[in-house]
Amino acid sequence: MWSRRIPLFIFGVLVLILSVAAEDVVWRWSCDNGKCVKLKNDPRSSEPALSLEACKMFCNEYGLLWPRPTGEADLGNFLSKINLNSIEVKILKKGATDDLMEAAAKRFKEQVSLAIPRGSTPKLTGKAVDVYLVNENPNEKAFSLEMDESYGLRVSPSGADRVNATITANSFFGMRHGLETLSQLFVFDDIRDHLLMVRDVNISDKPVYPYRGILLDTARNYYSIESIKRTIEAMAAVKLNTFHWHITDSQSFPFVTTKRPNLYKFGALSPQKVYTKAAIREVVRFGLERGVRVLPEFDAPAHVGEGWQDTDLTVCFKAEPWKSYCVEPPCGQLNPTKDELYQYLEDIYSDMAEVFDTTDIFHMGGDEVSEACWNSSDSIQNFMMQNRWDLDKESFLKLWNYFQQKAQDKAYKAFGKKLPLILWTSTLTNYKHIDDYLNKDDYIIQVWTTGVDPQIKGLLEKGYRLIMSNYDALYFDCGYGAWVGAGNNWCSPYIGWQKVYDNSPAVIALEHRDQVLGGEAALWSEQSDTSTLDGRLWPRAAALAERLWAEPATSWQDAEYRMLHIRERLVRMGIQAESLQPEWCYQNEGYCYS
Amino acid sequence: MWSRRIPLFIFGVLVLILSVAAEDVVWRWSCDNGKCVKLKNDPRSSEPALSLEACKMFCNEYGLLWPRPTGEADLGNFLSKINLNSIEVKILKKGATDDLMEAAAKRFKEQVSLAIPRGSTPKLTGKAVDVYLVNENPNEKAFSLEMDESYGLRVSPSGADRVNATITANSFFGMRHGLETLSQLFVFDDIRDHLLMVRDVNISDKPVYPYRGILLDTARNYYSIESIKRTIEAMAAVKLNTFHWHITDSQSFPFVTTKRPNLYKFGALSPQKVYTKAAIREVVRFGLERGVRVLPEFDAPAHVGEGWQDTDLTVCFKAEPWKSYCVEPPCGQLNPTKDELYQYLEDIYSDMAEVFDTTDIFHMGGDEVSEACWNSSDSIQNFMMQNRWDLDKESFLKLWNYFQQKAQDKAYKAFGKKLPLILWTSTLTNYKHIDDYLNKDDYIIQVWTTGVDPQIKGLLEKGYRLIMSNYDALYFDCGYGAWVGAGNNWCSPYIGWQKVYDNSPAVIALEHRDQVLGGEAALWSEQSDTSTLDGRLWPRAAALAERLWAEPATSWQDAEYRMLHIRERLVRMGIQAESLQPEWCYQNEGYCYS
Repeated sequence: MWSRRIPLFIFGVLVLILSVAAEDVVWRWSCDNGKCVKLKNDPRSSEPALSLEACKMFCNEYGLLWPRPTGEADLGNFLSKINLNSIEVKILKKGATDDLMEAAAKRFKEQVSLAIPRGSTPKLTGKAVDVYLVNENPNEKAFSLEMDESYGLRVSPSGADRVNATITANSFFGMRHGLETLSQLFVFDDIRDHLLMVRDVNISDKPVYPYRGILLDTARNYYSIESIKRTIEAMAAVKLNTFHWHITDSQSFPFVTTKRPNLYKFGALSPQKVYTKAAIREVVRFGLERGVRVLPEFDAPAHVGEGWQDTDLTVCFKAEPWKSYCVEPPCGQLNPTKDELYQYLEDIYSDMAEVFDTTDIFHMGGDEVSEACWNSSDSIQNFMMQNRWDLDKESFLKLWNYFQQKAQDKAYKAFGKKLPLILWTSTLTNYKHIDDYLNKDDYIIQVWTTGVDPQIKGLLEKGYRLIMSNYDALYFDCGYGAWVGAGNNWCSPYIGWQKVYDNSPAVIALEHRDQVLGGEAALWSEQSDTSTLDGRLWPRAAALAERLWAEPATSWQDAEYRMLHIRERLVRMGIQAESLQPEWCYQNEGYCYS
Repeated sequence: MWSRRIPLFIFGVLVLILSVAAEDVVWRWSCDNGKCVKLKNDPRSSEPALSLEACKMFCNEYGLLWPRPTGEADLGNFLSKINLNSIEVKILKKGATDDLMEAAAKRFKEQVSLAIPRGSTPKLTGKAVDVYLVNENPNEKAFSLEMDESYGLRVSPSGADRVNATITANSFFGMRHGLETLSQLFVFDDIRDHLLMVRDVNISDKPVYPYRGILLDTARNYYSIESIKRTIEAMAAVKLNTFHWHITDSQSFPFVTTKRPNLYKFGALSPQKVYTKAAIREVVRFGLERGVRVLPEFDAPAHVGEGWQDTDLTVCFKAEPWKSYCVEPPCGQLNPTKDELYQYLEDIYSDMAEVFDTTDIFHMGGDEVSEACWNSSDSIQNFMMQNRWDLDKESFLKLWNYFQQKAQDKAYKAFGKKLPLILWTSTLTNYKHIDDYLNKDDYIIQVWTTGVDPQIKGLLEKGYRLIMSNYDALYFDCGYGAWVGAGNNWCSPYIGWQKVYDNSPAVIALEHRDQVLGGEAALWSEQSDTSTLDGRLWPRAAALAERLWAEPATSWQDAEYRMLHIRERLVRMGIQAESLQPEWCYQNEGYCYS
């Protein structure tokens, strides 16, 4: 389908822009065998000078769309001149999501104006655009792993001076995705200073994986609320749908849990570096309007410490030498044998449930529990002996399970329902014994080890649902200098976008791919904070977004030109995204190869 | 000298802050064996609650100073409460540098207020500060490799409610450094919301190396003028003194050379992505006020291409396969056999001399010339034959030297004087034959290969002066994803600040250390632009700054706590510096070790 279009392409675009041949324009672009090639512009030539992005919109199978649609993706051959001030969005089916639809419509117009580079002023002549939103379930606004994020998008001319766009969907989330795609069909003709839009479009689209996330660790270093909202804004632009908030750890407790105020009073890095309930509600609402669920994680029983100092509910906090008791300083684990602990957990969980009120899932952490840490506590040893348990590996699993069952009950109680729970891969989730401890219908396992870890196959074969966060492709903190000692940090080298893009859950899970809910890039923050956030995540998380949305059979090479463009779009959104190549390569497709 | 102070330290600080024991303060810090340790604050305790930075100012030999002074560095034991609004700077010896001194005085007050974290409001009680500037050469404002950047700084109480600071120097540059150091002696007591200053100071200081630089390549990707000025601002904060502007390359020609307008008209990435003469003058002036020379580089005869399209003065531009003709796409070299070329160079050089009017040096590039590229040109082959040269390695060195001698003359003519010229290490600068071509009194060689390259010893033994930019420690673009092909880029892995800090020119040059003028970190911009600039450079360039200022006998471990602080100071300046460790480590000195 795609190759037939090229001859048409030249004629189509000709009809449209013939009217103007720019005088002082030096360069123009022309599509040659799927590549936009830079040519000297000859003002006297009858052939119209095509701007770079207008060329890119038709020279590549999916134009400038990111992620690429998974169904029909016909972009036709015509660009229409559009008046930026005459774009109207009309909600045809009203319902409980009207406020969300209004917010999404407002944001759509902001996203359209992204096409206009800073310092350029578009002419306000051209056609008007009417966008009709047809949501078959206008009351549906709950996140769920079964939610329908599909949409259909049709664009066609309507008389001489109007273009109609119709988006059909079965939920607000699908509708919002449709608006995002439509906003990517506008380009700026910097030769004639005009906003253009693809005029004939037929797109049907839906994601392959329901869980498409980014983890942010706000415990090892603090992030401003503004930087977190900026992350969710960028996630929406590439249709990621889960912001996994790893809010506490042994280094700090910034979550304002009003039922246990000493936890944040002692545990925050400073009185200003906290997340109040109001701030979290603001982020959660910001996410909902952008189709992004804000998923809280309270990591336990390990990865605790700061904030618990006056509770007597932790063991081996700041124990030395730290390597003997945990994976990084400071050490610290909850003491499962203390009954009061579970009251603490209920209070923390219910404070979380109160503010993370759109989440349909709860992440209970469960990574990197150290036997040696628990074993260093007399009260734990006594408890185990009273239970006629030994002090061996298996007994500590029993202790861990004892903790997890009690914590699980508190979670259900706090959230008021049996919601899906996520745990990290760990010694407890080992496929050889997981079913002794964790029910596959209650627990989703987030794989953080490597993409070739035999645990994956083992867990899938036992029917468990997985989320892929294998560190060899999706840990975005890897590759920098060491923060303890010298050299490079533990999971070096740096992971380029190419490896993120090619990290296919389907290839990892093979015949069990239907049990993979999706994937998530993780930004652990030992060496990242507000100042470094954008560069760590972007544009690499866009590569994750297309992999999880479309699970393409092709690899990064086929997506390279569009990836360079989505990076530029993110920068225009105010995201300090990493530069991937010299801009010369963006302007000279096909020349920057290995 | 240093160890004797600790007992005194407790008593000294006691006298000062006794008046107030903060009620709602949770944590305080105490200096224990050179480490600031975090302790629970007991409001009823008579011992004063010391804030973290007040502790750090006295618990570490050089307090919070960066770079550390090279002479006397006595910080006494007392902190005085200061009224931010009562700081006056008085220039005692007037002269031609008064405008620069006024600008530096204004900037000094801005740097002082950096101590106050965002969101905090200092009480405006406390002592006034009078800063007396005694510049023995108030007319001296020319950069030179021999300039005197030394200064002396004395601070002492003056009556009950004033503190006097006197800075003595032999040039504006030394004076400015003194003000920078003084601004680092202010801390904020976030326990009592008060600005404090070290009250008794005796510092004598000067740099070990005269050339302390950062290279920025603005050809592979574009950088805004604002981001360039931000870089110079950060350089001044750590006493780096040379902004080496690699302004053109084969990918783009953004330098507005009014004598040859087509070069930038065809060569800029877009009409907006240029550096006008006015903008360059603004940067040069901005640098002068901050003691930073802005050094232009016109890289030739290789690394040229975009912009030269209609001149017929280049060969193998965009030649394919590029690997056969250059080190990265697009290829392109000047054709030395064309007489018109040298008129072009004179025009470019004189346009550069006109706007880079404070530089005392000119960088003529000279890296990565490809024989195969020249050899692909008939006109060059004919020229060589006419000169009875073969087409072998040695003949192409003759051709290159032919070019360099003519270009050298044009440079002297354009700058109106025989100024020092810098060239990159290359086949032309090979120590085995360099003296056939390049006079050691005319040329400084910038070493970009590794720190163990035998060329270093060879060049030093032949009396050449060097600048160290060995890529294995000072190329700040290394370690990211590949931009041609997949995997990691050519000079991976990422270079941590520890390696930058320990890269000692003195160790590299041994008995010839006096011929090493200094060093320079290079940011090549294939994968960097305005969005990524700060993170690539900072805080690693601060590690370079202390190495070149002080050439310490100690290694990174001894500087770690102060390095974490200078990073926080850069972030407060609005620099998006990389985070090095969890903030927990900054608050718990000694716990984050390997």
